[in-house]
Amino acid sequence: MENFTLYNPTKLFFGKDVAEKLGKTVRPLGKKALFIYGEGSIKKTGIYDQVTRQLNSAGIDFVEYPGIRPNPIIEDVDAAAELGRKENIDFIIAVGGGSVIDSAKFISIAIPYGGPVWDLVTDKVKPTRNIPIVAVLTLAATGTEMNRFAVVQNNITREKLGYGNPLLYPRYSFLDPQYTITVPKNYTAYGIADLIAHCFEAFFGKGKASLSDRFVYAIIKEAMEYGPALLNDLRDLELRSGIMYVATNALNNLTLYGRVSGDWGAHSIGHVLSVLYNVPHGASLSIVYPAWLKLQRNRIPERIAELGQNLFNVTRVDETIAETEAFFTVIGCPSRLSDIGISPNQKQTIFRTMVDNEVNGNNHKLSHDDYRELIDLFM
Amino acid sequence: MENFTLYNPTKLFFGKDVAEKLGKTVRPLGKKALFIYGEGSIKKTGIYDQVTRQLNSAGIDFVEYPGIRPNPIIEDVDAAAELGRKENIDFIIAVGGGSVIDSAKFISIAIPYGGPVWDLVTDKVKPTRNIPIVAVLTLAATGTEMNRFAVVQNNITREKLGYGNPLLYPRYSFLDPQYTITVPKNYTAYGIADLIAHCFEAFFGKGKASLSDRFVYAIIKEAMEYGPALLNDLRDLELRSGIMYVATNALNNLTLYGRVSGDWGAHSIGHVLSVLYNVPHGASLSIVYPAWLKLQRNRIPERIAELGQNLFNVTRVDETIAETEAFFTVIGCPSRLSDIGISPNQKQTIFRTMVDNEVNGNNHKLSHDDYRELIDLFM
Repeated sequence: MENFTLYNPTKLFFGKDVAEKLGKTVRPLGKKALFIYGEGSIKKTGIYDQVTRQLNSAGIDFVEYPGIRPNPIIEDVDAAAELGRKENIDFIIAVGGGSVIDSAKFISIAIPYGGPVWDLVTDKVKPTRNIPIVAVLTLAATGTEMNRFAVVQNNITREKLGYGNPLLYPRYSFLDPQYTITVPKNYTAYGIADLIAHCFEAFFGKGKASLSDRFVYAIIKEAMEYGPALLNDLRDLELRSGIMYVATNALNNLTLYGRVSGDWGAHSIGHVLSVLYNVPHGASLSIVYPAWLKLQRNRIPERIAELGQNLFNVTRVDETIAETEAFFTVIGCPSRLSDIGISPNQKQTIFRTMVDNEVNGNNHKLSHDDYRELIDLFM
Repeated sequence: MENFTLYNPTKLFFGKDVAEKLGKTVRPLGKKALFIYGEGSIKKTGIYDQVTRQLNSAGIDFVEYPGIRPNPIIEDVDAAAELGRKENIDFIIAVGGGSVIDSAKFISIAIPYGGPVWDLVTDKVKPTRNIPIVAVLTLAATGTEMNRFAVVQNNITREKLGYGNPLLYPRYSFLDPQYTITVPKNYTAYGIADLIAHCFEAFFGKGKASLSDRFVYAIIKEAMEYGPALLNDLRDLELRSGIMYVATNALNNLTLYGRVSGDWGAHSIGHVLSVLYNVPHGASLSIVYPAWLKLQRNRIPERIAELGQNLFNVTRVDETIAETEAFFTVIGCPSRLSDIGISPNQKQTIFRTMVDNEVNGNNHKLSHDDYRELIDLFM
């Protein structure tokens, strides 16, 4: 087990109607907020009204930046940061899924920096300050509500990069499972694939951390039990609660303590598919992960079998991989690029983008030959 | 699942030589510390020297209150608080196991209060302020290093009471498994019994919380795997690390989120045995818990069987109880009061003290008839 610091500064309010505490909670953060959200579904569901009522009742002025796009993109971040600077805001309220909250994270460090966010994402400049973030989550998936990670896409360079910094922890996160009730079946399933992939990334990371492994099993088993049940009954609040809470735990550090690092190879390849074909993040992972496991089957057979033993009570590597792929299929996630209509003539484009994005992984390093093999496996 | 707030303000440094960060970390807390510890074994092991070196290098003045007694007692707390007030200290450094750190927690709220700590423990007075606590842990057991709970004993009233308040979270905790290497076999085992009991208390608490149940299984299975291995090789640092980390997780809220409450009935009965016969806390729990399970066998058979299924892969209630008791025996913990030389003629004394301490439990309420049955079961 490696040395580590166990600390997570996000204060997370979980459950029915927790947003009723929002106004009172955020009042000490200042007088003016930047309120960002996505394509406006929060207006139909009533979440917009609830949040603005809370802000008004707390006497907080706010400027809105609506229309944050999925697979968050730097144009949105830079424009929202510019607005926030101009309006001299004290904190950010982000209402939405991973894309909105990740955008808030970049805006939070881009505002004090003053230049283009890409400088920060590419480590050209190290951020030193941030603006507090208040997250109101409407999609159970990425875990961004309680971690220091974010991703952002640059459509010019065709890169989608992950970024981590302790400045990115939200100050407060409000998780009301009622807000996820209207998430459609496919995106509910993609969220489940995403959270399971996060666990895999931790499990196949570097360093032995026995209890963290057990937390991985706990989280995946919970998702595999609650997931299919929820997909059969999308309006069940208890099932929505279960999936929402488990998604947070899949990437709030719990599975990582005691390891040197996770292995983000498969995740980065998923980003390549998103940047090229606008594949939803979770769907990109249900496509890549089975292929990644097949690539590794002769390299780390014991480790894959350990996973299979604990998740599926199977002992053979191939059974573990088959069970994993079968689960993604059961919940309606694609497991091949062809399932979502991408033609094999894209292989070279995918390969080149993988090379440009250096999707090498941290622990189990991927070579260019591996890239080709992976593409063949998931095509 | 119940609504909850997920937040733990303790920053925990885990691993080899983490105390080397102590001076730098605590410097912002002030110029003068109250340094409390137990019977002085930290002088033999070199921990005392390391901590004082850190304080000196950070330019921090300190007054010492040594000799904190096990099963922390109010006389020590009141006397140390008096010293802290007189010396106008800025923060407390507690080096030791649960008793020392729990004492620090009470001192932390007793200093600003100014009166006897028993007023706070018995809820006569509500604390409003605290002095920051820095914990350096030397025993893996209670989890106090990362929670808001503490216990203290009043030898006059023969009460040992648990107390919880968010003011009690340590600000920083330093967990170096090397510091636990010299813990003798019996106290190592008692620590393991204690952490498993904490998981039971959560598991048998009120409210359905599926993921928290899975974390319970993860933690107990880790303890049941690492525990016996460690007891065979007390100097193995990796095993010491595993047990130290799992003990923290057994009572740092992780197993409680989503529940209404834990059930502290068996724990409170353990306190009665400690206050009467000075039984080490963990040993009191290995005595009480199998009896508590037997008492509940016909009342909550499904719940006990669920535990057995997940821990031991057994399906029957009696097998679950037998496996639990067998584990305590394997690690050398007593499972009957007679094992530690307490005579059956003490039954009435124990009963009366249980009545006085109102050891009723939170979820599965215990009647006076239950007290008698329990005493017969663990005698």
